Amino acid sequence: MKATIVTIGDEILIGQIVDTNSGFIAKSLDKIGVEINEMISISDDKKHILDTFAALQNKVDLVIITGGLGPTKDDVTKKTFCDYFEDELVIDEVVEKHVIELIERVMKRTASQINKDQALVPSKCTVLHNQVGTAPGMWMKKENTVFISLPGVPYEMKYLVENEIIPKVVREYKRPYIIHKTILTYGQGESLVAERIEDWENNLPAFIKLAYLPAPGRVRLRLSARGIDKEKLEAALEENVNSLDAIIHDIIVGFDDDETIEVVVGKMLLKQNKTISTAESCTGGKIASILTSVSGASGYFKGSVVSYATAAKIDVLGVSKNLINEYSVVSKEVVSEMALNVKKMMKTDYAIATTGNAGPSKGDSNVEIGTVFIALATPDRIIVEEFNFGQPREKVIDRAVIKSLELLQKEILKNVR
Amino acid sequence: MKATIVTIGDEILIGQIVDTNSGFIAKSLDKIGVEINEMISISDDKKHILDTFAALQNKVDLVIITGGLGPTKDDVTKKTFCDYFEDELVIDEVVEKHVIELIERVMKRTASQINKDQALVPSKCTVLHNQVGTAPGMWMKKENTVFISLPGVPYEMKYLVENEIIPKVVREYKRPYIIHKTILTYGQGESLVAERIEDWENNLPAFIKLAYLPAPGRVRLRLSARGIDKEKLEAALEENVNSLDAIIHDIIVGFDDDETIEVVVGKMLLKQNKTISTAESCTGGKIASILTSVSGASGYFKGSVVSYATAAKIDVLGVSKNLINEYSVVSKEVVSEMALNVKKMMKTDYAIATTGNAGPSKGDSNVEIGTVFIALATPDRIIVEEFNFGQPREKVIDRAVIKSLELLQKEILKNVR
Repeated sequence: MKATIVTIGDEILIGQIVDTNSGFIAKSLDKIGVEINEMISISDDKKHILDTFAALQNKVDLVIITGGLGPTKDDVTKKTFCDYFEDELVIDEVVEKHVIELIERVMKRTASQINKDQALVPSKCTVLHNQVGTAPGMWMKKENTVFISLPGVPYEMKYLVENEIIPKVVREYKRPYIIHKTILTYGQGESLVAERIEDWENNLPAFIKLAYLPAPGRVRLRLSARGIDKEKLEAALEENVNSLDAIIHDIIVGFDDDETIEVVVGKMLLKQNKTISTAESCTGGKIASILTSVSGASGYFKGSVVSYATAAKIDVLGVSKNLINEYSVVSKEVVSEMALNVKKMMKTDYAIATTGNAGPSKGDSNVEIGTVFIALATPDRIIVEEFNFGQPREKVIDRAVIKSLELLQKEILKNVR
Repeated sequence: MKATIVTIGDEILIGQIVDTNSGFIAKSLDKIGVEINEMISISDDKKHILDTFAALQNKVDLVIITGGLGPTKDDVTKKTFCDYFEDELVIDEVVEKHVIELIERVMKRTASQINKDQALVPSKCTVLHNQVGTAPGMWMKKENTVFISLPGVPYEMKYLVENEIIPKVVREYKRPYIIHKTILTYGQGESLVAERIEDWENNLPAFIKLAYLPAPGRVRLRLSARGIDKEKLEAALEENVNSLDAIIHDIIVGFDDDETIEVVVGKMLLKQNKTISTAESCTGGKIASILTSVSGASGYFKGSVVSYATAAKIDVLGVSKNLINEYSVVSKEVVSEMALNVKKMMKTDYAIATTGNAGPSKGDSNVEIGTVFIALATPDRIIVEEFNFGQPREKVIDRAVIKSLELLQKEILKNVR
């Protein structure tokens, strides 16, 4: 079973917004064995939409379309659906009632005509009821292809995918199995990892595909097995993951697809019953923010002091003024003090501290732009590292965040492996 | 001049990573008047790539391809290029020298054969030299279409777009003008804004297109003018923006394409010579992190206390234990105290505080999941608002961050408009 995801909207084509909807839909369909063969972003133009529909007709089983369903004039999807299916728009009374109620309850006003027009749907379509917004989803079949239209607002799209589309596809279609296994490695680059596992890779069976997904400091290896015999696929995947683990055991830190470093670190801290806090200058609270994005973070994360201004480092974090005068705010000495002090203030086992100059201009220190000091206070010692992450600002901050979490992870790993 | 952006990589089609490269390329090309007519993501499969190239041949002037250029076996783009252009791979000596030097300097080891193979390029291509990584870009022309291949690592891709592709396109091609103007509005929904400006919208000239880009709490209106007479376009855009401003002046907060709320708020604080701090519980440092993502934030942002654990609220932020016992950590009373205390600690003019339960499970308070209290301490008063952002966790945190910034902005706006 094959699907194509189509995103409609000029705002994507001029780069004003990034399309995150397609990724969510792909992941959801992939889990139930639907293969995504393409993702396409096109303009809000009727002819362009019609040409795209025609090109996909009978080439794939499912076409999932997001965007172009809002109440305003730049949204043309519904009218184009009518043209393509030779249909006309009619009011769906269930949707109309829902829209009127939702506007009254949430917006505390009467629904306008523009709101009510959201209930207009092609007469032949199966309506996918959107409980979290006003624009309904639509499911229409022509010959061998089903066309599904969804609103572009991410949480409305997600609601309809999870509650309407996935259950309907699972009920109505037979699909092959696709199983993925992701191996997360840290500390070695893509080409070095590739060299180490070359023989293993050459011996993979044909139904298992390997992909390298590099990111700063880490490489994800993804194995994908596709076939009809689920047990055979699972056994082969397990066997190959085990033989891989024997080769690069030293750099493997996790196996779950969703195991980002913040999730891995969180699990380890919980398991070891340890707590953490942060004192952040150049990272501006981003380490705390990423740690707390994980549900259950309150089990190990206590808090953070974002001491952005030099005064905050002195007044709130209690860093000595003399130390700052002697070594500058961006120094090994100051970052150590920040980590030790926040660890004491927040009463935690570990503490991370950052100070640096993310640019583009120089701040309260004379160090080169891109310079970052990271300190990790552990229950019994303090580790400090110096980096230069270059430019731009965004990259410096992101690299400092990742490096901090890596330092922490490496240190906690010592207690388990 | 038309372009299509093609992204190669199975990791995108299974939703494992989100393609942010296409958006960057689109924005860069749009600025110099190149129209992006489609973005396509396809698999690492040779036949799929060849079919896509053939379908685009002579339909567009430029095809920009990212991904599939790394050193590992799952990257097939270069070989496919050779097939499509009936060419063969040869070593480019300048690239080889660069790769060897880069590996020695950055990785502090000798370049391996896999590294050196990065210097293999199709013999007929124009090499785009990548100073920040090992994989070179490639520029090849067939009949009326130029195919450009770029590495998928975002900062390498960005380097080549900015330093090689944009200058080359500007030098070698004539392009029409495209001018965009974005109007940022806050506080009213898409359909309400649409009703207010309906007459104005109906009177727009045909060469100006309007798009609505809604997001929680705000709507961006984007006007795009396209034509050959730059002065005429600019004059028409200005005239229409002015007449729009006369209609919805009360909800317009900015005009710049890149003016996110954190940039707008930052500019206003700088202009009024005011400072800000935050005390964050459920938002976990994300408000601080977003405020400091803006360069120059040190001019108005002093710091934050992320008091995630109840103990941190008491010990670090000095919230009274009795107050917490009486009203719970998620309450109007506690959030007010948090804002007032951090304002005093950080010596700022404004302070934002958040406390709430982002879910999925209940924490140290009995309030309903999704409940968030936000407080804004101003130079002379304190404002507290209660919200329920529902679920999931990610949405609760994001909405709380946006609402906090909106509260702040609304308050500072009172001093200027």
